[in-house]
Amino acid sequence: MEKIEIFDTTLRDGAQGEGISFSAQDKLAITAALDELGVRWIEAGNPGSNPKDSDFFRYAKKIKLRNAALCAFGSTRKKDLSAEDDGQLASLLFAETETVVIFGKSSALHVRDVLKVSLEQNLDMIAETIRFLRARGRTVIFDAEHFFDGWKDNGEYALRTLKTAYEAGAQRLVLCDTNGGSFPHTISEACNAVCNAAFSQQADAERKIILGVHAHNDMGLAIACTLAGVEAGCTHIHGTLLGFGERCGNTPLAALIPSLELKLGRRCLPAGRLERLADLSRRVGEIANVLVPDGTPYIGAHAFSHKAGMHADGVLKSSASFEHIEPALVGNERRFLMSEQGGRSAIVERLRAMGEHVERDAAVIGAISRKLKALEAEGWQFEGADASFEILAQKLMGGFESRFSVLAYRATSEHPSGENIECCHAWVKVEVAGVTELAAAEGDGPVNAMDTALRRALIGFFPVLKEMRLSDYKVRVIDGKNATAAKVRVLIESTDGASTWTTVGVSADLIDASRLALVDSIEYKLREVVNLH
Amino acid sequence: MEKIEIFDTTLRDGAQGEGISFSAQDKLAITAALDELGVRWIEAGNPGSNPKDSDFFRYAKKIKLRNAALCAFGSTRKKDLSAEDDGQLASLLFAETETVVIFGKSSALHVRDVLKVSLEQNLDMIAETIRFLRARGRTVIFDAEHFFDGWKDNGEYALRTLKTAYEAGAQRLVLCDTNGGSFPHTISEACNAVCNAAFSQQADAERKIILGVHAHNDMGLAIACTLAGVEAGCTHIHGTLLGFGERCGNTPLAALIPSLELKLGRRCLPAGRLERLADLSRRVGEIANVLVPDGTPYIGAHAFSHKAGMHADGVLKSSASFEHIEPALVGNERRFLMSEQGGRSAIVERLRAMGEHVERDAAVIGAISRKLKALEAEGWQFEGADASFEILAQKLMGGFESRFSVLAYRATSEHPSGENIECCHAWVKVEVAGVTELAAAEGDGPVNAMDTALRRALIGFFPVLKEMRLSDYKVRVIDGKNATAAKVRVLIESTDGASTWTTVGVSADLIDASRLALVDSIEYKLREVVNLH
Repeated sequence: MEKIEIFDTTLRDGAQGEGISFSAQDKLAITAALDELGVRWIEAGNPGSNPKDSDFFRYAKKIKLRNAALCAFGSTRKKDLSAEDDGQLASLLFAETETVVIFGKSSALHVRDVLKVSLEQNLDMIAETIRFLRARGRTVIFDAEHFFDGWKDNGEYALRTLKTAYEAGAQRLVLCDTNGGSFPHTISEACNAVCNAAFSQQADAERKIILGVHAHNDMGLAIACTLAGVEAGCTHIHGTLLGFGERCGNTPLAALIPSLELKLGRRCLPAGRLERLADLSRRVGEIANVLVPDGTPYIGAHAFSHKAGMHADGVLKSSASFEHIEPALVGNERRFLMSEQGGRSAIVERLRAMGEHVERDAAVIGAISRKLKALEAEGWQFEGADASFEILAQKLMGGFESRFSVLAYRATSEHPSGENIECCHAWVKVEVAGVTELAAAEGDGPVNAMDTALRRALIGFFPVLKEMRLSDYKVRVIDGKNATAAKVRVLIESTDGASTWTTVGVSADLIDASRLALVDSIEYKLREVVNLH
Repeated sequence: MEKIEIFDTTLRDGAQGEGISFSAQDKLAITAALDELGVRWIEAGNPGSNPKDSDFFRYAKKIKLRNAALCAFGSTRKKDLSAEDDGQLASLLFAETETVVIFGKSSALHVRDVLKVSLEQNLDMIAETIRFLRARGRTVIFDAEHFFDGWKDNGEYALRTLKTAYEAGAQRLVLCDTNGGSFPHTISEACNAVCNAAFSQQADAERKIILGVHAHNDMGLAIACTLAGVEAGCTHIHGTLLGFGERCGNTPLAALIPSLELKLGRRCLPAGRLERLADLSRRVGEIANVLVPDGTPYIGAHAFSHKAGMHADGVLKSSASFEHIEPALVGNERRFLMSEQGGRSAIVERLRAMGEHVERDAAVIGAISRKLKALEAEGWQFEGADASFEILAQKLMGGFESRFSVLAYRATSEHPSGENIECCHAWVKVEVAGVTELAAAEGDGPVNAMDTALRRALIGFFPVLKEMRLSDYKVRVIDGKNATAAKVRVLIESTDGASTWTTVGVSADLIDASRLALVDSIEYKLREVVNLH
């Protein structure tokens, strides 16, 4: 199978998307997920223009990736500085990535009107920047900005920018449809023109040119444009896993890779990874705090849902009738809406991971499935909350005993604060094996105060809780349209150093949703504690 | 300009989408919006399979449309009934639409495996059904289900189904990619095969065949497939305005029509309607209770947003640099996001949109820029929160006077609830022009309770607040690592029917963050109110 290099720019171009904002921690978690999926390159930021990005690269030097290589992204040198004097290039070197992506202008119009330099000066800027980085041992990927518009406007010049980058040593030439206004047929024609250009023809004998395509979705054609590029010989593909990116976004890789692998005979990921696609895509969505749209091709929750009775019936008679692929190939599931069909296998699989071996037809699987469906209808989601799922399943299997219960609590936020008390305070009353205990605390917010009070109340009974702390806290409004009366879902990640687990709570009251997730989180830790009865 | 007929099936295929459910009232309102936009056909339901749909058609007989014609949708006659005896066909007639859409099978595989009749029987079913409807004065559109898969599998038979439908009198032949698994090149090849078939060649002399294309988005290629169909001669296009539809949805017409009209020289809508597209699309989204995804091509809220300073700068120098069309052509707007990546140009542009003309070098621009950077370092983000940005800028320019202040509040969540009070309750004390007022409320959560209390306290002073309601609420934990002590950012969208605005608040205390966003939201509405002093 012909190989395609997947280049993900979620952390750079994706971060330009409105509403997207990554902490350093988010970036590391997304890097890990993309590496697990097996993309070849991860463009992780622009250290020269953004101090947060340069912090990230300093931090990232310590991490080991199995499949991917991190890239730093920057522009050609400034028009009035030498490469040596350009601080932006220095910060690219300082990022210490093996590969650097340099964008330069390929459109004569933009060179004149936006960059405001001569056409020759722009070529010098491209050449010197790439030579400077090559001389310092970097692999260089050249992003030819506005390539397709430039090619339509002044094709000869657009090709010269590529030739210049190639001759300066760039190892990949990426043709960018920067404003997303090109049709697939333009991509095809331009790629063919590049392949037929004299310098390309000559190059093949020496150092083969590897062409890439970088599309945007402003006409809903990013996937089609990328496929047109592949058809025309591009073997290097830019995009963002979930299509994050400025304006209408970049090519959504999760919606494209399955078409390449399953239908067009191109290999994009290491063997066995395609079936992790749905799962890892949702994980990236979780980290970014963006719901993967239900209708996303291949990986969306609705991608293999059947609602119309006739369709459901058709699928049962011949799955090919209303499904273009087998959902499991991308780690997704067929769902029949309003039916009991879905989910059993997944539940059996998850119980197995917990060490519980239960047959697919066992009554308890039906009970768990029904309970999950009922809770999901109320806004619960156990996909990212394995510990809460485990507690729920144990309860239904009769193998779970609560170690404590919360009898009552009160959490308050007030402004201004009282004379001798912080703005946020809470008390919690618990019962452990017939003994009650009340504790109170102040905090940075009412949830924090309640969290502290709950631990204080429990720690005398369970000193092991000292080992445990909360490591992440996420809130998602489930239906924003009810505004402040909307339900919220809280996810809490906890750790005791040795392991990490996630729990979930749902309520219209954020504090109560947090309480539910906190209680599960502590119960999960206490599974190993001998019962006090 | 060559004309393209737009056929919208939001009310039929769109209603198959998960999470979509239309009341009769919704259907009438969507019909009115689509008619206003100027689509040629509106497929409004399947009266033979759905009693709600047949009610709708009874109701719809009274309404007058200016541009569109309603269609009823049904299948070929049952295999064991004559057309005259088939109740489903009777209900299509009873709908009294001038046009009827009939779907029939074009794939030999489906005829055998799903329909379970002989290939000849299927042709008879198609022919008799269409003749029956034509004899009763109906215009007939034939949907060739699974056409492309059928064509790949048994091309000769697929073409015979079309020939049969045409000869029985069908006025439109629509090639359907029912399971969404076809690539654009397959669409092209199949359409060319249809055009070159002997019956088509012959037809041209007598009654020209009008070909249509009906695509699904299971590979993210619905738009590209539809364009491939148009390129190959289809002049009749099926889709749903916002892409609603089973699984990954149908061709999203709002994202396609501008490409056809503005870039490919095809006329789809009456003159002057394209600039209503964004507005009418949002209206349909409102009616369907589905937010138009921000990244939707052409009409999404982010379609012409610019975040990166360089991009914002580029757009100001030459709008074509990062925009493929002028946003006003489709009734959308350019936006510059206020962010650390933004820079002076974006601030100047945003102030201009507020009606404030300030030079790029003015001291106040520096002050705003510094303030934004400082707030962003604390976790604030103004890129989606235009109203909070406007209030902030007005304050720094000295042109803002608060209409009220919150002197104190308390919000509490407790479980179990007290005997005579809900779990969540709050009071808020405000001051307006020297007069104080205290109000209290219960709520679904402490934020909801505080929101209600704040409005109660203010409404006597500002009756105009009755017009306003919150339409969306979002919460983002900024740095989850601090777990329950982490900061949260709250975004609140408000509307008064005429316009919509978004505000932001940040705090470690979610309730206080919400209070900040609520206060801005109300202050923004009160800008227009004469000061009480």
